[in-house]
Amino acid sequence: MELLDEVRAGIRPLDAAAVAAARARLDLMTKPRGSLGTLEDLSAQLAGLAGECPPPVPGPATVAVFAADHGVHARGVTPWPQEVTAQMVANFLAGGAVVNAFARQAGASVTVVNVGVATPLDRSPDLVRRGTRDMTVEPALTRDEARAAVETGIRVAEQLLSDGAKCLLTGDMGIANTTPAAALIAVFTGSSAASTTGRGTGIDDATHAHKITVIEAALALHSPEADDPLGVLAAVGGLEHAALAGFILGAAAHRVPVIVDGVIAASGALAAAAFAPDAVAAMVAGHRSAEPGATIALAHLGLTPLLDLGMRLGEGSGAVLALPVVAAAVRVLHEVATFDSAGVSEK
Amino acid sequence: MELLDEVRAGIRPLDAAAVAAARARLDLMTKPRGSLGTLEDLSAQLAGLAGECPPPVPGPATVAVFAADHGVHARGVTPWPQEVTAQMVANFLAGGAVVNAFARQAGASVTVVNVGVATPLDRSPDLVRRGTRDMTVEPALTRDEARAAVETGIRVAEQLLSDGAKCLLTGDMGIANTTPAAALIAVFTGSSAASTTGRGTGIDDATHAHKITVIEAALALHSPEADDPLGVLAAVGGLEHAALAGFILGAAAHRVPVIVDGVIAASGALAAAAFAPDAVAAMVAGHRSAEPGATIALAHLGLTPLLDLGMRLGEGSGAVLALPVVAAAVRVLHEVATFDSAGVSEK
Repeated sequence: MELLDEVRAGIRPLDAAAVAAARARLDLMTKPRGSLGTLEDLSAQLAGLAGECPPPVPGPATVAVFAADHGVHARGVTPWPQEVTAQMVANFLAGGAVVNAFARQAGASVTVVNVGVATPLDRSPDLVRRGTRDMTVEPALTRDEARAAVETGIRVAEQLLSDGAKCLLTGDMGIANTTPAAALIAVFTGSSAASTTGRGTGIDDATHAHKITVIEAALALHSPEADDPLGVLAAVGGLEHAALAGFILGAAAHRVPVIVDGVIAASGALAAAAFAPDAVAAMVAGHRSAEPGATIALAHLGLTPLLDLGMRLGEGSGAVLALPVVAAAVRVLHEVATFDSAGVSEK
Repeated sequence: MELLDEVRAGIRPLDAAAVAAARARLDLMTKPRGSLGTLEDLSAQLAGLAGECPPPVPGPATVAVFAADHGVHARGVTPWPQEVTAQMVANFLAGGAVVNAFARQAGASVTVVNVGVATPLDRSPDLVRRGTRDMTVEPALTRDEARAAVETGIRVAEQLLSDGAKCLLTGDMGIANTTPAAALIAVFTGSSAASTTGRGTGIDDATHAHKITVIEAALALHSPEADDPLGVLAAVGGLEHAALAGFILGAAAHRVPVIVDGVIAASGALAAAAFAPDAVAAMVAGHRSAEPGATIALAHLGLTPLLDLGMRLGEGSGAVLALPVVAAAVRVLHEVATFDSAGVSEK
């Protein structure tokens, strides 16, 4: 059995007993019942994922930034030159990007995975190919390439976990990568390209309208089927989107939480859920990206984002910003006194 | 000149040059313009507050939990016994409450200020009186008591700042304290008690309806005027609400950010803004409490909450949870590379 199929077969839903134990514990704690709002749902989910209450503290944590380029860049969907992907990889490695600053603040580490940057880079052990093909002309990837990218994501997750990570965070970099993300979200949620396509880094009305027609053309050319996630990723995906799907599957198989960043990660999360519906058990939506496709994808997955700050940067920035909230949801299960233990009267 | 008047006179608006410098810096950073959403507004605000860009990192940070009791408790506005206020003070001191767990996670310290707990407690150097009077019968406080509570809050802020705090967070504890909070918000925003009154710790429909009539009766009895904040606090306030107003004024006068927690803090923030409109420059709304009055108060103050998790606990829990986001907003101004310095191409 190949790695992807093995991992898919190992993914299970939340442990109901641990969820119930967390709910019971939350109700005994010195606070009014339900007064931590949706944070209590997160506490219960993380207990159910770990299969024990309290679940392990989600640290150390690592954000994996999957970087790749896109053949559809040639269609003029963004004003940014493709070389920026490689330049930003250098910026991540030098610690100068927003995700690096946020990670230092949150105590997370950053690892960069070159899964498909077009520009030749020094160290590229995970490279599948130098960018995708133009999805408006031919499939972006072969099925084998898509599988290789997914399995790279799985392997990265497994390596980070064996290195000691207790929480994984999704990151991404790839000029033009909101175009395949919008296409993937349209397919997996049955939505129109017009509804899933946003302004990415901030394009004007004309470029936005053009971007929608480019995505519509690619979808019309390939007619990808949502129940064949490898086929969808091959037709209109990106190497980082596929790798993120695998990364999420790897976290889910090992029952470790994965904080999902923005629209790129959300499209990868949809692919992961298409491979294994129970993978959703491991997903925590870090924030609501300003990209409309992110909201559509999160709703389809049934995920409630922790932050909603109108951010649209990617890199994993929104996931890292949410990490302390995720840690707090676990910490209360470990540390907060009960009415009994603290001698506090109930109503 | 008395302390309150001195502090009011020293509060100034944001420094426009530092705000502009932060905006300019954000636009040079290796990210699409505006891609950090409302976090960029926060970065600019904190620069403007400090009067320099980058502003100081907001640490160490301290949450001050102001605890007090309420004469209106006798009107049956909550099912919780009044003794819980003192029991929770003991819980805070033992480190067993939610705010303690969140504070350990965020690296903040917790200080408890007994400004008006009804139960006699060991150490009470800041006690103004043991609980307020019943606002439905007489003013909750005299003007002198209200002023003493406000000045206690100022002194606590000044002490924490002289001890080295670079960021202050509001906390509160007081069984029945959402009742005076709803009354204060109604007065300061010109809203109806029905719109500002929520379910606090989770009361039933009948108690909620009764709570509204209690507040309406108190407002009808005293007819407090929004432009006389000391009179409003005396008529329908609480000792912790008044102290929080002073605490916020103290932070604003010293140009240090103060993260505002939930509905109790928001009512204190309205009082602070009534004393000194420019105090808003120092305020950061940590989260949107589930209490309807909090949303009305934040809108009146023009504040956008950082988190929106349906929390309704108080204690400072929502403020502490937001601290890492505030720190991240400052950190980017210190650490993120520019397009020039990182050699990244622009669009």
